[in-house]
Amino acid sequence: MVLDVPELLLLGPGPSPVPDRTLAALGTPLVGHLDPAFLELMDEVQTNLRSLFCTENTFTLPVSGTGSSGMDLCLVNLVEPGDRVVIGTHGVFGGRMKDLVQRLGGEVVEVSAEFGQSLDVEAMVGAIQGGPTSLVAFVHAETSTGVLTDPVPIAKAAADAGALVMLDCVTSLGGAPVELDRWGIDAAFSGTQKCLSVPPGLAPLSLSARAIERISNRTSRPPSWYLDVGLLNGYWGGDRVYHHTAPVSMIYALASGLQRVLEEGLELRFARHREVAAALYRGLEPLGLECLVPAAERTPMLTTVVLPEGFDEVTARRTIRDQHRIEIGGGLGSLKGRVWRIGLMGHGAQMTSVTRVLTAMGDVLREAGHPADVPAATAAART
Amino acid sequence: MVLDVPELLLLGPGPSPVPDRTLAALGTPLVGHLDPAFLELMDEVQTNLRSLFCTENTFTLPVSGTGSSGMDLCLVNLVEPGDRVVIGTHGVFGGRMKDLVQRLGGEVVEVSAEFGQSLDVEAMVGAIQGGPTSLVAFVHAETSTGVLTDPVPIAKAAADAGALVMLDCVTSLGGAPVELDRWGIDAAFSGTQKCLSVPPGLAPLSLSARAIERISNRTSRPPSWYLDVGLLNGYWGGDRVYHHTAPVSMIYALASGLQRVLEEGLELRFARHREVAAALYRGLEPLGLECLVPAAERTPMLTTVVLPEGFDEVTARRTIRDQHRIEIGGGLGSLKGRVWRIGLMGHGAQMTSVTRVLTAMGDVLREAGHPADVPAATAAART
Repeated sequence: MVLDVPELLLLGPGPSPVPDRTLAALGTPLVGHLDPAFLELMDEVQTNLRSLFCTENTFTLPVSGTGSSGMDLCLVNLVEPGDRVVIGTHGVFGGRMKDLVQRLGGEVVEVSAEFGQSLDVEAMVGAIQGGPTSLVAFVHAETSTGVLTDPVPIAKAAADAGALVMLDCVTSLGGAPVELDRWGIDAAFSGTQKCLSVPPGLAPLSLSARAIERISNRTSRPPSWYLDVGLLNGYWGGDRVYHHTAPVSMIYALASGLQRVLEEGLELRFARHREVAAALYRGLEPLGLECLVPAAERTPMLTTVVLPEGFDEVTARRTIRDQHRIEIGGGLGSLKGRVWRIGLMGHGAQMTSVTRVLTAMGDVLREAGHPADVPAATAAART
Repeated sequence: MVLDVPELLLLGPGPSPVPDRTLAALGTPLVGHLDPAFLELMDEVQTNLRSLFCTENTFTLPVSGTGSSGMDLCLVNLVEPGDRVVIGTHGVFGGRMKDLVQRLGGEVVEVSAEFGQSLDVEAMVGAIQGGPTSLVAFVHAETSTGVLTDPVPIAKAAADAGALVMLDCVTSLGGAPVELDRWGIDAAFSGTQKCLSVPPGLAPLSLSARAIERISNRTSRPPSWYLDVGLLNGYWGGDRVYHHTAPVSMIYALASGLQRVLEEGLELRFARHREVAAALYRGLEPLGLECLVPAAERTPMLTTVVLPEGFDEVTARRTIRDQHRIEIGGGLGSLKGRVWRIGLMGHGAQMTSVTRVLTAMGDVLREAGHPADVPAATAAART
């Protein structure tokens, strides 16, 4: 085989394990991006994405880039120079929003929290009310810390102030409820490689009618051709005007992945993510480990585990990869070297993933001289 | 099977047919985007892309978006408000450059030619010398018309004027010589779905040291986070700083596709493209058809065929798709309804493609009452 890559169980912050059926869809021989069969598949993908996002937004589609390109699309189209944008930053991914809004000439009002803390809702509301706010942006499930934020009170304050709301749903979509219309979210983006268990490469995205109207009323054109909402609408909308050549194979994979999600059913899928996360939490104590995030604020698909002081996590993580054949994630930003990030996402959210990763973590901890009771951990997980 | 798509021979303007080996690579189970095995593959892809682009540029990598995202990356990083940019437009794809440079606040000096005509080199040189030019941008092989431009005299004039040169190599790379260093090109981008015969989804791209220096000296930051050269360099360069989650599967496919291209050898591959194009040209006359572009200016991998007046090309193209199982392309812009675009690209550049498409075209012409000698056409192609 030309590709010499190992077989690994992917339990890091993404990509998550891709089921064989989705890989088979990915490898389907291609048709053209304007072929009637492909146009039908585009319609199906849009319909199913609306079901996942719980929205009736017309502009709901997969952007032809990875999850982060969805952030670029939203901000490049929604922000104009001088716009006041309130951004909640409590991890790496909120920091990116701030960076981009500044590049676009927006005025950033940052409401920050320590890595691992949740956003202070009152501080967010105060910032929104503190001036003529154009946009409020924050992360639903912070992949760098494992914190899940309730968007409803923030979105309500934004709506009262006449501001639009943008939500980063990269890690949450398909693993926890995301209800754009009920919550009043105007712009949301996600990635395919987390709880959808489709390879990375597309950014499912949805914009409300209010967001589209805001874009139509811009005084300047967005500084991107590739991510221009008006141009994309010409292709994904009814007219099918050629814009760029769609990533056909990745859309095959997404179509298959979405079918799988909806076959399982959203409620059952969310419950499965909660149950395996709870099993992981139970198994951590016998290993002498704790979660970084308080129980009420944890996002089920991504658990941040605090490591013992002075533990050589890089070597241990390499052992877990080389000997146990599992990928887990290290810490980002201020958490680097201090935590591991365990993803139980999509196809990876299974009890066998939990027991395998607990066993691997326990083994490397014991090898480094830390007390860790592996049999007790896996037994606790299974109860 | 979940995906109900027909089996078609792809002889349009792209995507081109993807070989089974590349589809198999695409469907390889994933590792993480920071896994050592994947980082090795990234190195291999960069090395092989440098061979294809004939460059030693350090910043040579596949952008995580389709070919058009490569144009966005180049212009978003290279153009600042007020920059004077000379753009050659003789088809749809030059027009896009103009659109984006205007969005970025650049001053566009357009040198245009009719669709199907080649760029007027003297006019380009005159425009370059007509003011303090910052950047000169044009298309190598115009996919909308089938014209191949010699970049050397234009690049020389640009260098003499101290301007950078950007070349759209979406359709040419892997099918005709592209020699960035010898030609003096500072920014080039391509797509995976044309002569590389990898699915659409990545933009192979290369920036010269001069281009990188220009970007380092910007007075404002580029208005994109996803396509920021400095941030991308942190991941693709030696530091491997996480930026976005790389599209792992597509990079598997690209790695496989590049191996295939280099196994064949660039010279043999270019010769194959020239030979099958010549066979197509020979076969057109017995069908009563002509090429739009004069022989000396044609690009071998994309041939624009002028249709008889009043011919219902949409219906005929549908018959070719439904009954002959071949995709060919219609005209874009001012050529809509007047031409067909036949792509003989990458894995599709084979004599069997030529005889199959000549037979299909001849059949639908005859059905519509036009004289077309199919046996003579295929015989002429084979001589």
